[in-house]
Amino acid sequence: MSETHAPTARTRVVREAHRGVYERAAAYQILDEGFICHVGFTVDEQPFVIPTAYGRSGDNLYIHGSAASRMLRNLDKGIPMCITVTLLEGLVLARSIFNHSMNYRSVVVLGTAVAVQDVKEKLEALKLLSEHILPGRWAESRQPNERELKQTLVMRLPIEEFSAKVRQGPPIDDEDDYAFPTWAGVIPLEMVPGAAIDDPRLDPNRPVPAYARAYSRKR
Amino acid sequence: MSETHAPTARTRVVREAHRGVYERAAAYQILDEGFICHVGFTVDEQPFVIPTAYGRSGDNLYIHGSAASRMLRNLDKGIPMCITVTLLEGLVLARSIFNHSMNYRSVVVLGTAVAVQDVKEKLEALKLLSEHILPGRWAESRQPNERELKQTLVMRLPIEEFSAKVRQGPPIDDEDDYAFPTWAGVIPLEMVPGAAIDDPRLDPNRPVPAYARAYSRKR
Repeated sequence: MSETHAPTARTRVVREAHRGVYERAAAYQILDEGFICHVGFTVDEQPFVIPTAYGRSGDNLYIHGSAASRMLRNLDKGIPMCITVTLLEGLVLARSIFNHSMNYRSVVVLGTAVAVQDVKEKLEALKLLSEHILPGRWAESRQPNERELKQTLVMRLPIEEFSAKVRQGPPIDDEDDYAFPTWAGVIPLEMVPGAAIDDPRLDPNRPVPAYARAYSRKR
Repeated sequence: MSETHAPTARTRVVREAHRGVYERAAAYQILDEGFICHVGFTVDEQPFVIPTAYGRSGDNLYIHGSAASRMLRNLDKGIPMCITVTLLEGLVLARSIFNHSMNYRSVVVLGTAVAVQDVKEKLEALKLLSEHILPGRWAESRQPNERELKQTLVMRLPIEEFSAKVRQGPPIDDEDDYAFPTWAGVIPLEMVPGAAIDDPRLDPNRPVPAYARAYSRKR
C-alpha cells in the first residue's frame, strides 16, 4: 500500500503539478471515502459522463447496473474508460478573483473494465458495493436471487493507471494582494446525512438501525 | 423556459426511462443548484473525466481554467465533450438489495465548446462563474488584470443536446418483499457549509461577510 506509482503521460498532473499524488495509499483513502464516481466512456467519438456507485476491493474498482443501460452495454464491449472520484471540501476565497480556488481530493483511474462472469465473484462484488456504501446493510436485506443476478452486470476495473490531485488549506494570494481590503479564507463543505426517513409502508414499531442513524463517510 | 426538448438518440434516458426529464426549466434548476461538473473529453481514444467549476448564463454553460491545463488545451481544439452535473440527495434503502438506490438529480449536456475570445465577454463569463458559486464575492475581490485574463481560458458550451434524470422519494420494493423484516427508508444527504475559516494572514478585525456565513445552494 505504500507503493509510489509512476504516472504515465496520460495520468501525470499537468496543471498545478505540485498537487499531483501518485501513492496508492493516498488514492485508496480518497476512493474509500467516496462512493459516487463519474464514469467516462466514448461512443462514436462522443464522450459520455455518467454518475454511479462504486466499491473498491484491493487493487480493483467495481461498478454495477442494469445490463440494459447504455453505459454498461458499451463498457461490456471492452472500450477504454475513466473513473473519477471527487470529494469537494471547501470554497477557497482569495483576495484576487484569479486565486480563488476549491479544496478537494480527487482520483482519476484509466483503463478497460471487464464484466464479472463468475456468479460467486459477482455476488461478492455486489456485497462489496453494498458494504462500501453502507456497512452493515447487506446482512439485513433480502439477498439477490438468480433472476436479479442475471439482470445485473458487474464490471471490474483494475487500478493500474491512476493519479490523485489534492488541494487543501488557506488561499494563496500574490504578495501584493495581501493588503487588499477584503475577507479571505475557506468555507468548508461537507456531505452530511439528515435524519433517516421511514418508508411510508414500514412497520411503525421497527426502529431506525444504527448504520442509518449515524451515517458517515469518514474512513 | 417551459420548452420541452426532444431527446436525441444520444441523450434519451435508456434505463429507468421514467426518470428522464427533458424540460429546460427542470434541467436549469439542477444546473443552478450545482457548481461542480464533471467534464468528459477523449484524447487518442482514451476518455478523461475532470471535475471543475461551471456557471450558466441563459442557454450556455461556461467553464474556465489555465490555458496550460490538459483539459482546456484539448477542448480548445473543438472536440466533442460532455458536461455532467450530479446532485446527490440520499441513500434509498429497500428491503431487497436489488432495489436499493440513490436519490439524485443529474444533467448531462453534450456538445462542442468554443473559447471565448472577446475580452469583455470573457470578463463577464468570469464574473458569472464567480457569482454562480458565491453571489456577492466578485464585487469584494481584486478584479482580474490583463496578465491573469491572458492566462485564463474560458469555454462556452451551448445547452442544446441535454437530458436530466431524477430519482426521489421512498424505496420501491417488489410487492412480495414488503413483509421482509428489515428497516426501509431514505437517509437524506446534503452538502452543507461549516463555519468560515479566516485566512491566517487576515486582519483579525475583519468580520466574515454574510455570503460566507450563510452559504447555501438552494435556489
